[in-house]
Amino acid sequence: MNDMPPVIDATKLDKLAQVAVKVGVNLQPGQDLVLTAPVTALPLVRRIAAHAYAAGAGVVTPVFSDEEITLARYRHAQDASFDRAPGWLYNGMAEAYAGNAARMAIVGDNPMLLAEQDPEKVSRANRANSAAYQPAMKMITNFKINWNIVSYPGAAWAAQVFPDDAAPEAVRKLADAIFAASRVDTDDPVAAWAAHNAELRTRSSWLNGHRFHALHFTGPGTDLTVGLADGHEWMGGASPAENGVICNPNIPTEEVFTTPHAARVDGYVRATKPLSHQGTLIENIEMRFKDGLITEARATKGEAVLLKVLDSDEGARRLGEVALVPHASPISKSGVLFYNTLYDENAACHIALGQCYSKCFVDGGKMTPEDVAAAGGNKSVIHIDWMIGSGEMDIDGVHADGRRVPVFRKGAWAD
Amino acid sequence: MNDMPPVIDATKLDKLAQVAVKVGVNLQPGQDLVLTAPVTALPLVRRIAAHAYAAGAGVVTPVFSDEEITLARYRHAQDASFDRAPGWLYNGMAEAYAGNAARMAIVGDNPMLLAEQDPEKVSRANRANSAAYQPAMKMITNFKINWNIVSYPGAAWAAQVFPDDAAPEAVRKLADAIFAASRVDTDDPVAAWAAHNAELRTRSSWLNGHRFHALHFTGPGTDLTVGLADGHEWMGGASPAENGVICNPNIPTEEVFTTPHAARVDGYVRATKPLSHQGTLIENIEMRFKDGLITEARATKGEAVLLKVLDSDEGARRLGEVALVPHASPISKSGVLFYNTLYDENAACHIALGQCYSKCFVDGGKMTPEDVAAAGGNKSVIHIDWMIGSGEMDIDGVHADGRRVPVFRKGAWAD
Ligand SMILES: [Zn+2]
Ligand SMILES: [Zn+2]
Ligand SMILES: [Zn+2]
Ligand SMILES: [Zn+2]
Repeated sequence: MNDMPPVIDATKLDKLAQVAVKVGVNLQPGQDLVLTAPVTALPLVRRIAAHAYAAGAGVVTPVFSDEEITLARYRHAQDASFDRAPGWLYNGMAEAYAGNAARMAIVGDNPMLLAEQDPEKVSRANRANSAAYQPAMKMITNFKINWNIVSYPGAAWAAQVFPDDAAPEAVRKLADAIFAASRVDTDDPVAAWAAHNAELRTRSSWLNGHRFHALHFTGPGTDLTVGLADGHEWMGGASPAENGVICNPNIPTEEVFTTPHAARVDGYVRATKPLSHQGTLIENIEMRFKDGLITEARATKGEAVLLKVLDSDEGARRLGEVALVPHASPISKSGVLFYNTLYDENAACHIALGQCYSKCFVDGGKMTPEDVAAAGGNKSVIHIDWMIGSGEMDIDGVHADGRRVPVFRKGAWAD
Repeated sequence: MNDMPPVIDATKLDKLAQVAVKVGVNLQPGQDLVLTAPVTALPLVRRIAAHAYAAGAGVVTPVFSDEEITLARYRHAQDASFDRAPGWLYNGMAEAYAGNAARMAIVGDNPMLLAEQDPEKVSRANRANSAAYQPAMKMITNFKINWNIVSYPGAAWAAQVFPDDAAPEAVRKLADAIFAASRVDTDDPVAAWAAHNAELRTRSSWLNGHRFHALHFTGPGTDLTVGLADGHEWMGGASPAENGVICNPNIPTEEVFTTPHAARVDGYVRATKPLSHQGTLIENIEMRFKDGLITEARATKGEAVLLKVLDSDEGARRLGEVALVPHASPISKSGVLFYNTLYDENAACHIALGQCYSKCFVDGGKMTPEDVAAAGGNKSVIHIDWMIGSGEMDIDGVHADGRRVPVFRKGAWAD
């Protein structure tokens, strides 16, 4: 078993593990940890396990995936396989979360892994997997327990992000970009995160003070009014899960975000970055909305995959999230296209198709699914973020009486 | 991620994967496969996944363990951690088997991994794990579904088995020993296994024809009468699981075995090989039995671990299996001590402490746990095989009326 590629700085990787455990998931003494990761991320997983046990973990259980095994299915499996999913594993995870286990996911897979495979099979496998994962996913999106996603510079991902560099140099560059965005290139990453979390809290508090009826986005190819759900709450950075643990679900994170109203989105919008969706790159997305519903959708590349995604279920054609990110965010300034939502969504304002976060409501934890739906929260098996922000984006907050307040001007906070 | 060490013959490794899928688990079209493995065994797991999908697998789900993560727990975890286990994962596996998923386990870990750790913590962690694994384990020992264990030549294991060889040479030697014992060094391994299974069936049929009341073992340091359970059935090689699939649970396998009577074992017995138990080597075991119960137990090394094992529960001090293996078996003839039960138990006659196999009864599949207990079948959370056979072992079959029939003479079948 290969240990860490020597181009990855061991000290910073260890700090990334520390941030994931202490800031990301904020693991509590006695809490179990369920950790999903590609097997290539083993060096980071090992360091996370050490930090988690040092923090008092009960038992740390890694669940590894492997790209070669995923590909073996597409190469050899019979047709019926593509409607199957390991429901037993996901039910087990739901049981773990119900027992207050924390959840960590390490991403770093090859974003183009399934690019050459039959899109019909990819879509069926994704649909079967999403449906089976639903009970566990619900506990995550409803923020029942503390969780975190962090990433590892896998070689295939690095090659995609830095195509002009040889393998070890591409991995080194991606590792450094991950370390910088995750604030582990500082002496005291935990303190750096405390300061950053305070800044995000200031922004979300200002938006919650206004409690706008809608946001109006304008920019090249975009004139979109996104109604906000009744009683919506803006969130960002650290926030308390329902088990009381304050965690940072995403490392890195630069966004403040809330739940749009599923029936009050109107106008047209153009993506400002490609969307990498489960092995397919979808480029130049354009959509038109009427009364919350997507009435037109196209893309210059990957359109077939996009249209399949929109047919996942009823809620796939409506929005579940709207998020604000300054164009000057560190990830945006790096100029790197990561082909990874965790990074790219933190480089630009974005919206998400599908499931809303019920935590993005005042007293969201006490709401039933019916309450959430009545307030305008969307429901779907999918949640797919795509980027609409740029340095030319203006955003107004619109009150119910029509009064407008500048929120963003030329991609930056208006204040 | 390192792919296969170049010292391992790729063609034979692929044949081992084929034997595991076709002969071992005999995966049926549409059946899911749950596969546990150390992460170092990834090259074999990938080939097994390919063969499993080609055989019509629904979905293949690997569950990897990692020795460094196991050690991180002993190095960093707080005391309370050692009473925890990932019950959610094992409950999920039980759910998978209840849904007719097949099970495969790849072994090849460092047998001495935990040798330096606190035996008290090792024992507590093992006990917590065994208890949590019980629901899934029961479905395996009761043979509800087809399953298989196969092994991979891990570097630490190879270093233990061939301490005088440098790392790559030791792995090459262990790989070759595994390939030979698993009959994949032949042109048609599947045909070789069919012939071997027929030979084992002949032996178990002869024993079932006699249906002895007891077996009487004599040899240096051993004079032991092992009563056989009422309505016991000898098994060996391929046999049908309760789901109707004929599989070979162990690759390799040389034994025929049945269920002893938990209350009718008397005399004394000396181990003929060391027992490698979860990281501890237990040497020169000697035990005395009265009315089925172990009344004395000692070992020249690892005795503390052995005594802890015997205190696992009520049934840990009684036998759950007796098995016959000729001293001339290929694994015995190789002269290699594998420090691995899967191999070493196939080099010598052995007995097992703890849980019996309920399949080793006539119509065992229809018996309730109470029926099994009434017939003399033992019950425990442990099942630990240890080796008592040698070239000097004589065995008589003893009928209820005292009539004796030679079974083994000088370690070989008496016929
Ligand atoms: Zn977002
Ligand atoms: Zn999102
Ligand atoms: Zn045995
Ligand atoms: Zn056994």
